[in-house]
Amino acid sequence: MSQHNKPTPLSGFPELLPAQRNAELAVIDHLRRSFELHGFSSLETRIVEPLDRLAKGGEIDKEIYVLRRLQADDEASDSGLGLHFDLTVPFARYVQENAGKLEFPFRRYQIQKAWRGERPQEGRFREFTQADVDIVAKDELPFHYDVEVARVMAEALAGLPLPAMSLQTNSRRLIEGFYRGLGAADPQRLIAITDKLDKVPADAIKRQLVEEAGLDDTRAQQCLRLAQIRTPDTSFVERVRSLGVEHELLDQGLTELAAVLDGCAGIRSDGFRVEANLRIARGLDYYTGTVFEIYMEGYESLGSVGGGGRYDSLVSDGATTYPGVGISFGISRSMVPLLQRGVLTGSRSVPSAVLVALADEASRATSDAVAQQLRARGIPTEVAAAPQKYGRQIRYAERRGIPFVWFPATDAATDQVKDIRSGDQTDADRASWQPPAEDLHPRAVSMHVKEEQP
Amino acid sequence: MSQHNKPTPLSGFPELLPAQRNAELAVIDHLRRSFELHGFSSLETRIVEPLDRLAKGGEIDKEIYVLRRLQADDEASDSGLGLHFDLTVPFARYVQENAGKLEFPFRRYQIQKAWRGERPQEGRFREFTQADVDIVAKDELPFHYDVEVARVMAEALAGLPLPAMSLQTNSRRLIEGFYRGLGAADPQRLIAITDKLDKVPADAIKRQLVEEAGLDDTRAQQCLRLAQIRTPDTSFVERVRSLGVEHELLDQGLTELAAVLDGCAGIRSDGFRVEANLRIARGLDYYTGTVFEIYMEGYESLGSVGGGGRYDSLVSDGATTYPGVGISFGISRSMVPLLQRGVLTGSRSVPSAVLVALADEASRATSDAVAQQLRARGIPTEVAAAPQKYGRQIRYAERRGIPFVWFPATDAATDQVKDIRSGDQTDADRASWQPPAEDLHPRAVSMHVKEEQP
Repeated sequence: MSQHNKPTPLSGFPELLPAQRNAELAVIDHLRRSFELHGFSSLETRIVEPLDRLAKGGEIDKEIYVLRRLQADDEASDSGLGLHFDLTVPFARYVQENAGKLEFPFRRYQIQKAWRGERPQEGRFREFTQADVDIVAKDELPFHYDVEVARVMAEALAGLPLPAMSLQTNSRRLIEGFYRGLGAADPQRLIAITDKLDKVPADAIKRQLVEEAGLDDTRAQQCLRLAQIRTPDTSFVERVRSLGVEHELLDQGLTELAAVLDGCAGIRSDGFRVEANLRIARGLDYYTGTVFEIYMEGYESLGSVGGGGRYDSLVSDGATTYPGVGISFGISRSMVPLLQRGVLTGSRSVPSAVLVALADEASRATSDAVAQQLRARGIPTEVAAAPQKYGRQIRYAERRGIPFVWFPATDAATDQVKDIRSGDQTDADRASWQPPAEDLHPRAVSMHVKEEQP
Repeated sequence: MSQHNKPTPLSGFPELLPAQRNAELAVIDHLRRSFELHGFSSLETRIVEPLDRLAKGGEIDKEIYVLRRLQADDEASDSGLGLHFDLTVPFARYVQENAGKLEFPFRRYQIQKAWRGERPQEGRFREFTQADVDIVAKDELPFHYDVEVARVMAEALAGLPLPAMSLQTNSRRLIEGFYRGLGAADPQRLIAITDKLDKVPADAIKRQLVEEAGLDDTRAQQCLRLAQIRTPDTSFVERVRSLGVEHELLDQGLTELAAVLDGCAGIRSDGFRVEANLRIARGLDYYTGTVFEIYMEGYESLGSVGGGGRYDSLVSDGATTYPGVGISFGISRSMVPLLQRGVLTGSRSVPSAVLVALADEASRATSDAVAQQLRARGIPTEVAAAPQKYGRQIRYAERRGIPFVWFPATDAATDQVKDIRSGDQTDADRASWQPPAEDLHPRAVSMHVKEEQP
């Protein structure tokens, strides 16, 4: 209400224009629908957690935003609350707080924002939206839930109107078993070294395996061979077996990872694939079995746009432990760079599929009545702002991307509807006309941006 | 992750259990659908604004949460950013920032959280969700948009699965014109006095009108009579006319308010009504024409659960002014007290309409396949966690509120489905069976809480 200088965007806090927001909504709606079809309940947590919850093992290693009450007394100004930096910490706290009121196994999805104070860069924001699915049980979580979580995220990703995605998966049991079978004394050390294979040349990794982990040359070579196995099906089993390493834990890992691949077998599509990728470990995080990373094709420079895995203990309250398995997908991480580069947008800036034209101000009631009849049948409709010449009303629709302009009947004539893309104008019955299904709501559409000539 | 003492809820930051969240989602989905049918675009703004934006006329009168980066140097630790306390300040800033990229009139809805550091009480939270609709134009916004905004909110409220609501409306032009017609020197002063009529006895108001505003007894009485007019239709016009006051601005106000009532005439329903209520003024806020308040029947103690009106300038950048009209509905304000009292909840805690039973662990693939076929036809489905006795699997569904349990065919027999509420079990075809439409997704349901005997 007061007058201000023109505001400028805040770095790291991306905001979308209406057409871009419609693309984001299409993605969120698709994710939500996929998760709900599989019985995952929606959860929304408060944005704040006590600071000691945000600390990991006593130490806070994330850039956290702390809340202070502006009007509070100086000494009490810090609220002791910080904005959550992911959706896992609040989920763990929620499960512990409400354990007695929840039914386990508890499947939940959470599509919400999180905040980190770190320096913004492409694909990394201070405020970002992510979509998490997790299944959490009491005491024990059978392995088939790993397959279930992979499948629900795979189905969700397969239908996204975004560049091709891959859900890459591995088993920490498989790699740990392999290293143990090799006779390695400290498998965690090997995981830490080979995990850097995407950033460090293979030669250097091999040298580290020999010098730092004490492997001989042959064994170091076998570690590298394992890490190079990547298959779209269960053929990785044969390839691991051919390396000649034996261990009980390796067997279990191979069986489990094969089950994940089998479970997702039906879901591969043009825009999506599931792969066993035996170099994936998710660092030294708390994952204990299956692990996942999500990559977007052509945008590998963004790094992974999601990931997750199985953890033996989301939270423990002494008497009870809650193991879980989950995957997180970065909505802002994947979408905002596409929206900012202009390779993705919404098919229109408004939800309206129809603009009802206005002959003159006196016939506004007529145009309103047509709009109400179309809305009553689920067709988003708006009425022209002013009784301008029809050519200007059509351009009004065009600027918003509204595909149809409706001309109410005058005198004895019938209503007509114009598809402003083709220019086709036909008689139409306001009580029965339907737009094509793909025009009913805004969609996310890819724009073909001309590559610059080299 | 780490082990913690059992967390306790944070006062003023309400969180919902899964069934309650499903009730909230049903409300949000209905609001969104209503707004989109009328062509309102979704907007989501960042949660922070620069502190000077959150100040009103240089002074900050709200309890604001300020962000501080935990790891920042001491001197730079305050970010200068605060959490927004409503959705109007960020909307105004967004319009100004993006004016060149928006199409006007710009219809937007925004369903988002806001934060206030004030002391929590029933219906007042530190973190709360609200749903705003506004129409904003460049330079000029014709009056018919007041009618449009009233109608879209009325339609949205009329379909809510909540206690009966009323959208009460008035025109500040009408009351100001009436006071001017009475010869009052300072109509704003009269508005400020009569605005307290719901909290202060009529006698005291009348005394104030005489002693503080200098009205004679007859005129003070006429002010009170005006404020007592409340009609479900345009009959208020006759009643105001009968008070014998004349003024051009009064005429305009009467015409406009009648148009709002006429525009909403078709929308009254059992659970909802629109009323002209001539005591409503929305305090001394920035509203200039039509004003609105939303009340929930039986919960008047919560105060209004929404409101809004017309403002001549949402924002101005010197050359251009952006007038608007909008209404805000408090989702947390209205729903959380109902959920906390147990008079409202979701029809189930999971999205699943069907639980597919599991004969034994070996037939999990069969049960999964049934589930996939049902999901492919849009039916949210989960598979039983373990091959327990069917009685226990049915109780598993019961505890979650899942209405149907599906028994996959064994041998030559056919699939069967059981409605666990009626106990009816019938043959069913997994390729064509549909649950009743009202069972497909969770709904918000009112619980009849027994009134205590007096």
